[in-house]
Amino acid sequence: MAEHVDPAALTTVLDGRWRELRTTLRDRMRSTKLADSYDLDRETHRAQVAEQMRELVATGHPRLGFSPEYGGEGDVGGSVISFQLLGYGDLSLMVKAGVQWGLFGGAVQMLGTERHHEKYLRDIMSLELPGCFAMTEAGHGSDVQHLRTTATYAGGEFVIDTPDDDARKDYIGNAARDGRVAVVFAQLVAGERAYGVHAFVVPIRDADGRAMPGVRIEDCGAKAGLNGVDNGRLWFDGVRVPREALLNRFGDVTGDGTYSSPIESDARRFFTTLGALVRGRVSVAGGAGSATQRALAIAIRRGETRRQFRRPDTGEEIVVLDYLAHQRKLLPALATTYALHFAQEELVAMLHEVQTAPETDERAQRVLESRAAGIKAVGTWHATATIQAAREACGGAGYLAENLLPGLKADTDVFTTFEGDNTVLLQLVAKGLLTDYRDNFADLSPLATARLVAEQLMGAVLERLPTRKIVSPALHDRTWHLDLFADREQHVLAGLARRLRAAASSDSDPFEVFNDAQDHVLRAARAHIDRLVLDAFVAAIDRCADPAAKALLERVCDLHVLSTVEADRAWFLEHGRLDPTLAKKVVAEVNALCKELRPHARTLVDAFAIPEQYVATALD
Amino acid sequence: MAEHVDPAALTTVLDGRWRELRTTLRDRMRSTKLADSYDLDRETHRAQVAEQMRELVATGHPRLGFSPEYGGEGDVGGSVISFQLLGYGDLSLMVKAGVQWGLFGGAVQMLGTERHHEKYLRDIMSLELPGCFAMTEAGHGSDVQHLRTTATYAGGEFVIDTPDDDARKDYIGNAARDGRVAVVFAQLVAGERAYGVHAFVVPIRDADGRAMPGVRIEDCGAKAGLNGVDNGRLWFDGVRVPREALLNRFGDVTGDGTYSSPIESDARRFFTTLGALVRGRVSVAGGAGSATQRALAIAIRRGETRRQFRRPDTGEEIVVLDYLAHQRKLLPALATTYALHFAQEELVAMLHEVQTAPETDERAQRVLESRAAGIKAVGTWHATATIQAAREACGGAGYLAENLLPGLKADTDVFTTFEGDNTVLLQLVAKGLLTDYRDNFADLSPLATARLVAEQLMGAVLERLPTRKIVSPALHDRTWHLDLFADREQHVLAGLARRLRAAASSDSDPFEVFNDAQDHVLRAARAHIDRLVLDAFVAAIDRCADPAAKALLERVCDLHVLSTVEADRAWFLEHGRLDPTLAKKVVAEVNALCKELRPHARTLVDAFAIPEQYVATALD
Repeated sequence: MAEHVDPAALTTVLDGRWRELRTTLRDRMRSTKLADSYDLDRETHRAQVAEQMRELVATGHPRLGFSPEYGGEGDVGGSVISFQLLGYGDLSLMVKAGVQWGLFGGAVQMLGTERHHEKYLRDIMSLELPGCFAMTEAGHGSDVQHLRTTATYAGGEFVIDTPDDDARKDYIGNAARDGRVAVVFAQLVAGERAYGVHAFVVPIRDADGRAMPGVRIEDCGAKAGLNGVDNGRLWFDGVRVPREALLNRFGDVTGDGTYSSPIESDARRFFTTLGALVRGRVSVAGGAGSATQRALAIAIRRGETRRQFRRPDTGEEIVVLDYLAHQRKLLPALATTYALHFAQEELVAMLHEVQTAPETDERAQRVLESRAAGIKAVGTWHATATIQAAREACGGAGYLAENLLPGLKADTDVFTTFEGDNTVLLQLVAKGLLTDYRDNFADLSPLATARLVAEQLMGAVLERLPTRKIVSPALHDRTWHLDLFADREQHVLAGLARRLRAAASSDSDPFEVFNDAQDHVLRAARAHIDRLVLDAFVAAIDRCADPAAKALLERVCDLHVLSTVEADRAWFLEHGRLDPTLAKKVVAEVNALCKELRPHARTLVDAFAIPEQYVATALD
Repeated sequence: MAEHVDPAALTTVLDGRWRELRTTLRDRMRSTKLADSYDLDRETHRAQVAEQMRELVATGHPRLGFSPEYGGEGDVGGSVISFQLLGYGDLSLMVKAGVQWGLFGGAVQMLGTERHHEKYLRDIMSLELPGCFAMTEAGHGSDVQHLRTTATYAGGEFVIDTPDDDARKDYIGNAARDGRVAVVFAQLVAGERAYGVHAFVVPIRDADGRAMPGVRIEDCGAKAGLNGVDNGRLWFDGVRVPREALLNRFGDVTGDGTYSSPIESDARRFFTTLGALVRGRVSVAGGAGSATQRALAIAIRRGETRRQFRRPDTGEEIVVLDYLAHQRKLLPALATTYALHFAQEELVAMLHEVQTAPETDERAQRVLESRAAGIKAVGTWHATATIQAAREACGGAGYLAENLLPGLKADTDVFTTFEGDNTVLLQLVAKGLLTDYRDNFADLSPLATARLVAEQLMGAVLERLPTRKIVSPALHDRTWHLDLFADREQHVLAGLARRLRAAASSDSDPFEVFNDAQDHVLRAARAHIDRLVLDAFVAAIDRCADPAAKALLERVCDLHVLSTVEADRAWFLEHGRLDPTLAKKVVAEVNALCKELRPHARTLVDAFAIPEQYVATALD
């Protein structure tokens, strides 16, 4: 591996398909004065973010994701990239922008039809119409299908009602201070029948900022972080909106109250509606990635300058990043941050293709939703753990607000549970895998089925044997890595399918059966996402044209793989994929890679190309 | 196991030796109106905490730890218990009290002599003299031995100087607003020779709150949490204090500048000085435990009322704590919280015995220091992880400040790096173990040494064999648990000693040798602390007189042990202590125990007997 690698060569690989846009956005960020927010009171912070929102409008970037017919640019992927880059700055601004243009604007665009686009999109882009995305209720967060707000059709209008306090809309961004309308998700009732959750555009404040009649608004008050975002609660008491307020892409009601939909099944319609909103999840995963990169950049810069304790021989003080324990806190996390960055790039490209395709591709949409759920879950948990490690790596100084890590911690904390609780999301991923698995089985010829069953049986037999001698692979052999991850994914899933099938054929309680296997379910999803993430890393290395950068990326990928294997090596040992000798070698090799990559740590974070004012702190 | 267990029976076991004091303190807390702090600006919060400090004085509890001669109660253990119980409330108050009566008052008591006690202790207890503990410098946090502030003896006085900005005292509690004096740690220089770090009582503010001449004070400003504590920075420029300002228990200077000390070696004197301050570490471990208990109580109450998703059969909504994944987030952490609570009780008792013994017992002091370091590290990391899990378990509601988890997270975060960085502390523990190990070896007869070597060799040989059939133990067999933990401790330490010895005999760089083994070093410390913690749990169960409570504690202990083994099962597999079949059984048994303990979850947190107003939130 070369002594010196040019960070710019790495940046080219990291930037990927939206390189040009990223460069433009970074240039803008570099030329903008960074507005600190860590020491502002809540109202001042909210006002500052509101002002920054207007500055964003002036850049034109919020228009990226909207239809060209209404002044947008139709660059779906670019809109997510633009959101991601906001993740290097005040995350309150990122989230507030996400609420306005991603969630609220996205719902109008994806769930509405021409009449809504014509009426609202320009004002949404220009911020003339600040809005909210009012889905979550106090009593129903993950289980959106059973929201309890109602929209009852009567006399040419929908009447929006909050049946009780548990059904209030809660944690709604933009609701406490700025929102003028809200896209409200409610059970549509027409002619005595309920048709499931639909979305309605509901005015909540008049031009003077007063709550509309029948609407009650409360401030959620102080939060752990993101205090520049005005989250609030909404109650509706007989609020009447015209029939046209229904965002009617997937379901409509005629003047006489007849319901119609291109999708027959209420359940399928519901999942199609949610699926159309997938961009939010992709965006959160991206924002978490940016915050993680920033935290690592801050901590590694600190780790390169901070010295503590003396060498016994020379008496010279030791740079803390020279300690193995310090490297272990930061470098495997850095390697996985690279891996997730490339997986995110692929995810954004996939989103872009699916949402700009002339025809709906249901299979591609399903793959996208599953991948977005999984990468959001894995990426946001990685953010929480890594930012925590970065804070601890900076000691007391890392606890001071001016050194930015406290804000990064507090602001990103909610990412693991908003836009889908991570545990619920991984379960979604696993359910998708089980469905595919069953479908594949159904499609197989009897001979192929027999072969598959035989393979599984062999696997099971192998595991019950005393650990056999495993031929020791080269630990940097990428083919071995790919096989190891793919094999684990396949094995965990097959085992889960077998287990659930066996239980299902008994007369056990179906909830208990699934619940007893919940750790297995989550593991299947993890193993699947791990494999996808590695595939993305490998593909990115293939794209790298600079030999020195490529060689460095190979080592970073090794560290990502081997530290992932190390963390789950119990599984590999239990299932005969590693023997004790090889498992210990993996641990030793993680140490060796930390040492080898340590001189490149600064290069690796510089390559994120985060504008200097966002990472320079008193810690340097 | 009984259907119902009386929480009070568990509380009796948890309360242990200081039961009476705990009851009194809890009664006081119950009758005090809880003052929220989550929505206060910094200055208001500081003022509120300052007021609460005065209320504490009125209770008399701050006097617990001081000598009866000056109006104290001489109850060292009780003073820590009293601090711990403050950990159920606003942690800013706990830390501010810890600074005044623990760190500042403790330094005067433990490092000073009669003249200081006579002059200061009464005013410290009554808060007439608010003070700081000015040890940490910007450039030296962990490496206290190389602090760079100087105290130069000249003309009957010490002159305190901050040589450069890197040597400013930093993060000093009570410095930014309230402190009138500081115990300043500085390199004592007398007659051209430096004698290492000593402590001096230095006035920093006059009665009107103005900085004293030569003293510069700055506010550290906003922190991640603990914003009710006024942390600041101090610079000294030729500040003269009388000779008597030196806290002279371990070293003194005569009028003519002659240095004398009961301890010859500068290094030994330094470590004796630090050792005298061990109470701080014990206290932080205790405070972390209280905060963890509170977070678990909040999250488990929530988990018992919150429902999400419907059972496929009945359509009834499922209580979230009935999900295995939710149980896994909270219940193993709850079990380990019990374990750490009992270990903390033992630690407090040990501290009490050591510090109230008529004679100094150096061996006991060393054991105490090692145990305090280890339990502080393990306990504060456990707090960070558990409070994070509790926050995530409460979803978006857990992110609202009014539901207390954000404050618990932010306030406790610094515990892992203050009063000793956890990584550095575990290294201390391991170094102590290595010294003991070497000493034991030296004491052994040739025959005993040969036997020990043979045992180690056998262990090594066993590991290299293909995994042998391991006789499957009963998973709830406590003897097996104890053996497993003790064996791991012994094995990891022996391996480390062998590795370091082998490297030391080569001509390798000694820093590199130790550094390359740093993960092994930290593992040795962890394994040691795990064993101590389990011993403490077992001893506590033995003390339990109520059969139903005892049976429940046995299961909680099983969950603690098996989830600890599960987390480290790669090691047990690699070293032939578990085979794959048994390892998988351990995982399955953790699931089974979660299910079995789930109906008792509320009882287990109620048993902490945290006053209701500290755990009742809108989440219930």
